[in-house]
Amino acid sequence: MCVVGLGLIGGSLMRAATAAGRDVFGYNRSVDGVRGARDDGFDASTDLTEVLERAAATHALIVLAVPMPALPGMLQHVAATAPDCPLTDVTSVKVAVLQAVRDHGLLDRFVGGHPMTGTAHSGWAAGEATLFADAPWVLSVDDHVDEHVWADVMHLALDCGSFVVPARSDQHDDAAAAISHLPHLLAETLATTAADVPLAFSLAAGSFRDGTRVAATAPDLVRAMCEANAGPLGSALDDVIALLTRARDRLAADGSVAELVESGHAARTRYDRFDRPQILTTSIGEEGWRESLAAAGRAGAVIRSALRVRGSRG
Amino acid sequence: MCVVGLGLIGGSLMRAATAAGRDVFGYNRSVDGVRGARDDGFDASTDLTEVLERAAATHALIVLAVPMPALPGMLQHVAATAPDCPLTDVTSVKVAVLQAVRDHGLLDRFVGGHPMTGTAHSGWAAGEATLFADAPWVLSVDDHVDEHVWADVMHLALDCGSFVVPARSDQHDDAAAAISHLPHLLAETLATTAADVPLAFSLAAGSFRDGTRVAATAPDLVRAMCEANAGPLGSALDDVIALLTRARDRLAADGSVAELVESGHAARTRYDRFDRPQILTTSIGEEGWRESLAAAGRAGAVIRSALRVRGSRG
Repeated sequence: MCVVGLGLIGGSLMRAATAAGRDVFGYNRSVDGVRGARDDGFDASTDLTEVLERAAATHALIVLAVPMPALPGMLQHVAATAPDCPLTDVTSVKVAVLQAVRDHGLLDRFVGGHPMTGTAHSGWAAGEATLFADAPWVLSVDDHVDEHVWADVMHLALDCGSFVVPARSDQHDDAAAAISHLPHLLAETLATTAADVPLAFSLAAGSFRDGTRVAATAPDLVRAMCEANAGPLGSALDDVIALLTRARDRLAADGSVAELVESGHAARTRYDRFDRPQILTTSIGEEGWRESLAAAGRAGAVIRSALRVRGSRG
Repeated sequence: MCVVGLGLIGGSLMRAATAAGRDVFGYNRSVDGVRGARDDGFDASTDLTEVLERAAATHALIVLAVPMPALPGMLQHVAATAPDCPLTDVTSVKVAVLQAVRDHGLLDRFVGGHPMTGTAHSGWAAGEATLFADAPWVLSVDDHVDEHVWADVMHLALDCGSFVVPARSDQHDDAAAAISHLPHLLAETLATTAADVPLAFSLAAGSFRDGTRVAATAPDLVRAMCEANAGPLGSALDDVIALLTRARDRLAADGSVAELVESGHAARTRYDRFDRPQILTTSIGEEGWRESLAAAGRAGAVIRSALRVRGSRG
């Protein structure tokens, strides 16, 4: 398989897939990243055309692991050099990527993906083979997806230790706004607010550290993921502003924050008790398999061991 | 010394002060808490009058470690039975406590305190002797405070492994709103928002877990601290709503969240680099000592080893 972009996610993927016994080669734009990968014994190059020609020749699965702003340029190269390879990505938004892939005529071989993992660090050196262990890895089950490419990417995610959450791209983006992009903006807001208050940093303890941890993420990465998901994120911000405005008004009028505190605690309790039933019986490729997987994913179910593919043996 | 209330903070304080070689006894309302403390070898009772009489007889430092709503009732008992004992508290707001102490005629012997530590759990069993280690412990330096009581409480905080941040009560409350009460309300808001989105809990990973961790805190405790600090918290909420509204509008108009993301990242970077110079030269009780400590605290300085007290030897 071929990993395009060897930053935190792509670099971790190269390590994890190699550790799982796969044959992996990759491209990175910066010489530093490639040198880091080579020093660690991996097969990496700064020559994009050469890497994509090799992918085309071996019919390798191509994983796009570049930030959203770099994606259209990369798709152009793939369309020119390796248009028939199975293709996936690890970008944190799915509708915008789907549109870009469609624009480049690559939809037939594409299955969007998003491993829900990360750290506040970036670059090859920050990667680790265990980054995906026990993390959700979303695979898109939009109407167009091909069963064989889908099965390929499912195997990759499982090989890396993740469990697979099947989801439609639009539903992924709504959820990602709520549980990833919104937390980033709330962390930025909390850090910004406290910075203006004398004594605040001096007194800051656990709740502030936790609440601002992701504000340490590189601004470009946060912007890239938030701005590529502007629609769902805007709606989530509307919800948050409405909740906070109501809480402020109740606090001023009645001296109470009961409503918000009780709903938040109930929600967090539900989250703590949330468990993920396993999807076992769907065969990839059978009649209605995409709808069936999307419905199961929406209900919280996940794939922990490879599903059967229609027509394949064993 | 005498600890009134043996929950997470009071129970941890009993353990930490005992470990530091102090003679500690305490009161708890619930039989379960007292039984837990006794089973662990501590000196605890459900008889408040007896405990306070013993404090009065031994001129013990009394630490009020009950939730804010229970504080006025407790102050009434202290005023009736042990009005001359040095008195402190560990409550997360300081202006409201100061007012209650004044109302009960106990101001002369009172120095407000707030160890900035905790977990999402509560009750005797949740406590631990190391809870205060390397945590900020605010001591109020309001105009009235007595130098000897202040020195007593400073020694207690240092014995428990904390460092002391001197602060005026009103400045403490502004900072606590920004770095403790606001993070709680943002966590409740994030959990509430995500709970309505299908797939959200299924995809939730690090940023959501961190961002909602404190929403697991018992609602009564969150309400007690937020509602007792309604003024500063209301202002902090105004700031947050203004920042988020501006971010939403910029996202809708220009597709950019650059402003918020960059200010948040800069603030968090400043926080990561924030270091706390040590206060070494002030003598407690010297001319202007309260103002001097408040100014040093406001500038980020802390007390890590006991300051000299004017007129005392060694």
